[in-house]
Amino acid sequence: MNLLSIDDLTPENIKNLLYIAREALFSSSRLRHKILATAFFEPSTRTKLSFHSAMIHLGGNVIDLPDSSSLKKGESEEDTIRTLSQYADCLVIRHPRDVKGLAKYSSVPVINAGDGSNEHPTQALLDLHTMAMMDKEVLKIMFTGDLYHSRTINSLVKAITKCCNAEFIFTNEINEDLKQYPHLMIDESEIPNYIDKVNVLYMTRPQVERHTDKLVTSNFILTNELVNKMAKDAIIMHPLPRTKELPPEIDTNHRAKYFDQVKNGLYMRMAILGWLI
Amino acid sequence: MNLLSIDDLTPENIKNLLYIAREALFSSSRLRHKILATAFFEPSTRTKLSFHSAMIHLGGNVIDLPDSSSLKKGESEEDTIRTLSQYADCLVIRHPRDVKGLAKYSSVPVINAGDGSNEHPTQALLDLHTMAMMDKEVLKIMFTGDLYHSRTINSLVKAITKCCNAEFIFTNEINEDLKQYPHLMIDESEIPNYIDKVNVLYMTRPQVERHTDKLVTSNFILTNELVNKMAKDAIIMHPLPRTKELPPEIDTNHRAKYFDQVKNGLYMRMAILGWLI
Amino acid sequence: MNLLSIDDLTPENIKNLLYIAREALFSSSRLRHKILATAFFEPSTRTKLSFHSAMIHLGGNVIDLPDSSSLKKGESEEDTIRTLSQYADCLVIRHPRDVKGLAKYSSVPVINAGDGSNEHPTQALLDLHTMAMMDKEVLKIMFTGDLYHSRTINSLVKAITKCCNAEFIFTNEINEDLKQYPHLMIDESEIPNYIDKVNVLYMTRPQVERHTDKLVTSNFILTNELVNKMAKDAIIMHPLPRTKELPPEIDTNHRAKYFDQVKNGLYMRMAILGWLI
Repeated sequence: MNLLSIDDLTPENIKNLLYIAREALFSSSRLRHKILATAFFEPSTRTKLSFHSAMIHLGGNVIDLPDSSSLKKGESEEDTIRTLSQYADCLVIRHPRDVKGLAKYSSVPVINAGDGSNEHPTQALLDLHTMAMMDKEVLKIMFTGDLYHSRTINSLVKAITKCCNAEFIFTNEINEDLKQYPHLMIDESEIPNYIDKVNVLYMTRPQVERHTDKLVTSNFILTNELVNKMAKDAIIMHPLPRTKELPPEIDTNHRAKYFDQVKNGLYMRMAILGWLI
Repeated sequence: MNLLSIDDLTPENIKNLLYIAREALFSSSRLRHKILATAFFEPSTRTKLSFHSAMIHLGGNVIDLPDSSSLKKGESEEDTIRTLSQYADCLVIRHPRDVKGLAKYSSVPVINAGDGSNEHPTQALLDLHTMAMMDKEVLKIMFTGDLYHSRTINSLVKAITKCCNAEFIFTNEINEDLKQYPHLMIDESEIPNYIDKVNVLYMTRPQVERHTDKLVTSNFILTNELVNKMAKDAIIMHPLPRTKELPPEIDTNHRAKYFDQVKNGLYMRMAILGWLI
Repeated sequence: MNLLSIDDLTPENIKNLLYIAREALFSSSRLRHKILATAFFEPSTRTKLSFHSAMIHLGGNVIDLPDSSSLKKGESEEDTIRTLSQYADCLVIRHPRDVKGLAKYSSVPVINAGDGSNEHPTQALLDLHTMAMMDKEVLKIMFTGDLYHSRTINSLVKAITKCCNAEFIFTNEINEDLKQYPHLMIDESEIPNYIDKVNVLYMTRPQVERHTDKLVTSNFILTNELVNKMAKDAIIMHPLPRTKELPPEIDTNHRAKYFDQVKNGLYMRMAILGWLI
């Protein structure tokens, strides 16, 4: 059993993970004597430490393949994965292009922690967890920033569609994967006209490291003036790290939930690890 | 509760920590399921591994922000600390300038592991622990080396003054912080005339990485001839790493306590972690 | 008690370690509250992670001196080892030249994880474990590749000689250490004539990083045609990482045991850690 894509999950799987994360149904020695190996072929300390913390909270332990590892030098990535899977009970892999292909070489479950512009299913699930805590019948979500390159949004829209009623507003150019979902496409200049109608403002940063294929620009910067137009119980989300699109002055607004997302990420990853291992 | 400066401690706090460290009043599962995060914005493997070992000895576990972390790149240090504090029960931060400012962004206790030339309170406490084991009514301490830039000596003199009777001899230029304490100032050339009168010879290396503001030179090199002039029960201390000021030929002398300091550091950091978490 | 060389082991020690590894006589909390420190002055993620995993499987924990550590900079390696041995219950050291010399400065047991072209005793023991599982009266082993620089083969031949009946075939230039053992020396071009007569084909990669003293070339590349000439119950071994000498097309042959070696390495290192600590 792997978690490589949101496609690997049934709606029931997703609802079950949300339930476990929300009710914090964790035993602190559930994964005692179990080992998680993290292999990040593209650096991301934030995601890696989130998995480390989740595994330790469950009573397990962690080994880490360093970013610039000698294990990778001089040997194929396939051999690296084969070797790591002898040492651990579960692998978390991030890769600039392909995790699915590498997962075939593992003898233990593999979690995709982001593969290029494709998917980032655990980030999607933790975001869904944050949204689900609002208990809305219909989620009305406006996405801003670099939607074209965001693997998180790819995975998130797929996950939401599987288990919730939702309406999507996109404010910038989208990729082929996203085009298949019903949505309203508006221009960034129209955001002020719609921001009072949504439950969730989901912001992303420019994924400049992926702009080799296509340049995407976004000039949208959130202001307190705009935030004050939002519904009282609407929330602002961002997968972090942020750049100038989300100024620190917003942090004290009660709608800012992006640091709660970090904590929710810990709980959701505990739910995922407990389920897979 | 943070430990950012010796100022955060009452004399009773200090005495209590010394008592715990000395009597080794540690339970090996005291911090079971607790996580310590280390964030060193300036490298120091020695201090970091000392905290790792202390936390594991108490039954807890550790996550580490790598020195050149992607978590730091592209996001503010404030956001990094906010994120880390979601993952862990206590943070240990080292920073080239400011730990106090960053600590405000943490939702869990913060320990200062050195902030520029300001303070290094846990090193001061472990040194005090080493001195306290001598059971002297009055500590007579001679400090040599680069006293101007040593944050350890700043913290140490402050801690000693809080809870012991002590007399200080400085043998090199000192900074404004140190000038406020009663002391005798001598020239390095006079060290041989005073070395037989002290309980403690506390040596430091040139802090060349901090000489951007001011160049401090020290030509003092300890010799066996000088060591043999010291009182039989006097001790030689050094926070390590050492350079040429303290040659390996001294290591076999019974007065050499600098490797005992390393072990005492482990015990004192166990006492501090057990107290804060 | 250290494990610096196969010379540190009696035949009984070796047989006992093989028995423990084979029968998996491990208690998962045998080393609870114990700490292993890894100090690799020459990078090797594979070996390091194998020890990490073994220690965690035994219920212990790990601290790691980073490859490019500040602990090493500005201080002698001797002081580094002295310091680490205050923090941990056992050290694993890899070094480009000398582990024996450094081990003198440790106050806890030291395991040699490879010292230049000298020895690599734990790799030898795990290889021996893999061979011992064949239950052959006489091991007939053909070694290929860069035999001159392989510390693994130095240690392995020594270990086999101590406790098994074996016949060695070398197919390339050997060093002085290996010359003392009875062996048959053939040319690489003759491998096809002998490959059907051995139980074990032990392959190594060119150790190009050690070719500063002497250039060793090997043109031998294993093919399926050759593998099919081997005895049905013969096995192919390689300490990994591999380069072109061992193409992935061989991996599906039942004789390929090089990924089993990785798993056996975990068990043998658990046996060694449990015995030393």
